[in-house]
Amino acid sequence: MQYQAPVDDMMFLIKDVFNLEQRFKGIADFADFDSELYAAILEEAGKFSTNVLQPINRSGDEEGCQYDDGVVTTPKGFKEAYQAYVEGGWQSLTANPQYGGQGLPKALHVLVEEMFYATNTSFCLYGSLTAGAYHLLQAHADDATKDKYLPKLISGEWSGSMCLTEAHAGSDLGILKTKAEPQEDGSYKLSGSKIFITGGEHDMADNIIHLVLARLPDAPAGPKGISLFLVPKFMVNDDGSIGERNAIRCGSIEHKMGIKASSTCVMNMDNATGFIIDGPHQGLRCMFTMMNLERLSIGLQGIGLGEMSYQQAFDYANERLQGRAEGVEGTAPIIRHGDVQRMLKTMQCYTQAGRALAVWLGAWLDEAFHSTDDAVIAKAQNMAALLTPVAKAFFTDIGYEVCTIGQQVFGGHGYVREWGMEQHVRDARIAQIYEGTNGIQALDLIGRKIVANKGAFLSELLTDMRVDIEGFSDSAQKSLLIEQLNGLEDLSYKVVENFSDDHDKQQYIACDYLHFMALSLYAYLWLKMAEAGQDSKRESMEFYFKRLLPRAYGLKKSIENELGL
Amino acid sequence: MQYQAPVDDMMFLIKDVFNLEQRFKGIADFADFDSELYAAILEEAGKFSTNVLQPINRSGDEEGCQYDDGVVTTPKGFKEAYQAYVEGGWQSLTANPQYGGQGLPKALHVLVEEMFYATNTSFCLYGSLTAGAYHLLQAHADDATKDKYLPKLISGEWSGSMCLTEAHAGSDLGILKTKAEPQEDGSYKLSGSKIFITGGEHDMADNIIHLVLARLPDAPAGPKGISLFLVPKFMVNDDGSIGERNAIRCGSIEHKMGIKASSTCVMNMDNATGFIIDGPHQGLRCMFTMMNLERLSIGLQGIGLGEMSYQQAFDYANERLQGRAEGVEGTAPIIRHGDVQRMLKTMQCYTQAGRALAVWLGAWLDEAFHSTDDAVIAKAQNMAALLTPVAKAFFTDIGYEVCTIGQQVFGGHGYVREWGMEQHVRDARIAQIYEGTNGIQALDLIGRKIVANKGAFLSELLTDMRVDIEGFSDSAQKSLLIEQLNGLEDLSYKVVENFSDDHDKQQYIACDYLHFMALSLYAYLWLKMAEAGQDSKRESMEFYFKRLLPRAYGLKKSIENELGL
Repeated sequence: MQYQAPVDDMMFLIKDVFNLEQRFKGIADFADFDSELYAAILEEAGKFSTNVLQPINRSGDEEGCQYDDGVVTTPKGFKEAYQAYVEGGWQSLTANPQYGGQGLPKALHVLVEEMFYATNTSFCLYGSLTAGAYHLLQAHADDATKDKYLPKLISGEWSGSMCLTEAHAGSDLGILKTKAEPQEDGSYKLSGSKIFITGGEHDMADNIIHLVLARLPDAPAGPKGISLFLVPKFMVNDDGSIGERNAIRCGSIEHKMGIKASSTCVMNMDNATGFIIDGPHQGLRCMFTMMNLERLSIGLQGIGLGEMSYQQAFDYANERLQGRAEGVEGTAPIIRHGDVQRMLKTMQCYTQAGRALAVWLGAWLDEAFHSTDDAVIAKAQNMAALLTPVAKAFFTDIGYEVCTIGQQVFGGHGYVREWGMEQHVRDARIAQIYEGTNGIQALDLIGRKIVANKGAFLSELLTDMRVDIEGFSDSAQKSLLIEQLNGLEDLSYKVVENFSDDHDKQQYIACDYLHFMALSLYAYLWLKMAEAGQDSKRESMEFYFKRLLPRAYGLKKSIENELGL
Repeated sequence: MQYQAPVDDMMFLIKDVFNLEQRFKGIADFADFDSELYAAILEEAGKFSTNVLQPINRSGDEEGCQYDDGVVTTPKGFKEAYQAYVEGGWQSLTANPQYGGQGLPKALHVLVEEMFYATNTSFCLYGSLTAGAYHLLQAHADDATKDKYLPKLISGEWSGSMCLTEAHAGSDLGILKTKAEPQEDGSYKLSGSKIFITGGEHDMADNIIHLVLARLPDAPAGPKGISLFLVPKFMVNDDGSIGERNAIRCGSIEHKMGIKASSTCVMNMDNATGFIIDGPHQGLRCMFTMMNLERLSIGLQGIGLGEMSYQQAFDYANERLQGRAEGVEGTAPIIRHGDVQRMLKTMQCYTQAGRALAVWLGAWLDEAFHSTDDAVIAKAQNMAALLTPVAKAFFTDIGYEVCTIGQQVFGGHGYVREWGMEQHVRDARIAQIYEGTNGIQALDLIGRKIVANKGAFLSELLTDMRVDIEGFSDSAQKSLLIEQLNGLEDLSYKVVENFSDDHDKQQYIACDYLHFMALSLYAYLWLKMAEAGQDSKRESMEFYFKRLLPRAYGLKKSIENELGL
């Protein structure tokens, strides 16, 4: 089954639902906002997904990455696809034009990322880490470093990796042990071992620029003693040419449940040469500025794989004949059975609402990075901070669920590898774990994004939403939505008022709270899409309110029980 | 991590919660009911699980079954384990003593099955299919056939397979095409191709007895034209010795997401010799008598893998150090974090309630098979009919969810193959699909088990439960439970009264209804366990009512919305 890029639905979001042209009017960087260009980019991204990425997705899963004495070989076809990816300019969409980037909005890029994750999650991860690296350098490196590294990272000629996790330090980075010794020439010698490094080694790019968290000899204990270093696989000469091999080497790769064509590396440093970014002990601060983009990107893995699984399940349900149905002579396609319809509609409603939230969040990120108005920036930063953990965790929890439903539609054929439905499930599963587990996202949401600002971010968001909702036509769903948002607000304030210092209680409810909030936001987005869209959107909206939103009632009750409310 | 058979919890169910000795008093077949013997059997089953099955579980997954020109080779160690399984008498626990069985209660056997599934699901499936075959022959074959085949199937020297599915006929068996031509000697020649045949071919037993659904030349169309045939891999001579190879051959095996050490075969018959069981066109009727046992067995796969995943996650959470916690110097074990506790308690509460439901259902099956009192048999049959689809679907949906949570507790280490947590997820996933997809279970529940008898089975069950609940000590949870069961009853009667002929509506709500009922039954079982047990059971019960039962509220609302109530 060939992937069909949902370009119409995507442009519907950009134009009709969020009217980004209007919204970005005050931003000079987006002065050349051009819907037709954006649609053309999405069309091209769709072709790239279908023609280049999808054909090597299953073979990549079967073959996996191979490790031999420090060298990692990607599956057949990956090198050529990566070359085409670089030549097509797909690495540089949102990067700074000063260094060769295209300066396009994140609100557009999320849709491209969705397509690439949909058709080849393993492949997509290499570029995602490269983008993480260059955005981080854009924000924190000095000019000389930027000039030296950014153009090749932005083009994709070189790739990037983020070396954070150590065997004993995953969610708790504060206890990491990798050491960095200052040298007389201003560089550092790094020693230590990192694990779970996505794209830490591979054969697709000429060089790999590792961004490594480590401790200086005089570093204070804990998270405040972590510094960030740029450690190239090959040293880069002053003229930009590639120099000698640096002492950072891949010790092995992991054998995993999925994303088998993505190399997950143990990276060993033995006096590897590194260069400090943004001064001593600034490591975690630097990482935090990047996290929103990376976390949203991983969220899109959930949306993309959910869309892919949906398209295949929908096609299969139309073709597979089992059982009888009214008005069908002989055996009916299984889509005629109500339970199958319920499954398909569930997949579709979750995926499309997620896509809308991604564009919405992308637009806040665009304002945060590109606006010159301090008030706009401050608000956009708050909204991005609030919505990012929701997007990362809910997109991926639901992505896994949606892929599991898609597999179920195929029955036994969903369990055999041949049809590819089980690969989506295996590939989707990691997104709930890496880039901060979804438990960590939930703690981030309730602790840093709700309690720490006493609910101010949420209030800001709800105020906007309520103004918007005021303009919606009256309906039973509108009343339900107003009630739902009031419930979200009340519950959040009760947490702020009564449990600000009770970290245990916050932990007990964190995941349920995140899901409860996400389901409430999806209700808003569905009504907003129904207002802007055709009958099919209205039908989906009705299904969402009827069948999926009720999940939020159970979550609310569970939270209230835990809090004794 | 070595599996710890939860024998104490199991004996707590047999003795304290359900008091099976008392319950089985009127059944002559269980006159020698002996709690100490049962505990000893469970201890031995635990040792077999830990010493024989668990050690070849991960290697079996890595190696998988190999196919070469019709021959299937099981992974290293499987043949020896199977030999030990046969010699240990593990195949024959519930079988008829007349043919060498041990005649033990199903209510005990479910616990043994749980352990075997927990430690090696792939291995366990071969025996499960053999049991399916011999129970079917016990019920429907003539004496000569029983004498010839049962002793070797019951001992496990020969294994069994159930050949139902064809490429175009899965959930809809009525359209299957395999043909059976009557021969002058009273036998039949079968031709056709079956797919997804678990244990259809392997190298562990001397013979394989296939039970095959096929059509006679004069068969009516649809499900009423299906007959059942015994088709041995090797013909069996009158003296019981093995004769010539029959024309049923394995054409290939599937490459699957999980249960990789279980062979899933395409079985081709080209004029294979078969013997009809129970006369023409009785095939589906025969299968239906077996389905309860097979479906419960597959349900136990969910419970077993959930327990295994829980034990590993619990151990890991006690050992893995990340983050701070009050009262802990330095880095705390992650079990000290509330979100991890929530995950572990969720796993435990679902798994233990499932185990209780399995024993409860097992006892009904025992009464149905072994009582001599017609009233007891009739009621037990009704209860088994009602509870079986709930057990199969909910145990396996929740088993998959629980294994996914267990994997999450491990973070990135849960995603790599090394720790085995991801194998549980992959192995658990199939149980939602085979032996009737969980969607089919839900339709069976609402259509055949609720609507068809106008809610009579449910009423019978609720009447019993209410008498029982009357004796429980007063508590907030008792009131909630009474309310919950009233809600279940009301909703069920509304479906019976208003939607008996509306198959679409039944389909739309079927899965949510099944989960809603299961969560309600689990609430009853938790209160029942808390009444009979220690403080730890009370704590778990409170957690269940506080955090997990609320899920049922959302489901109820979703169903009511769909029905316009």
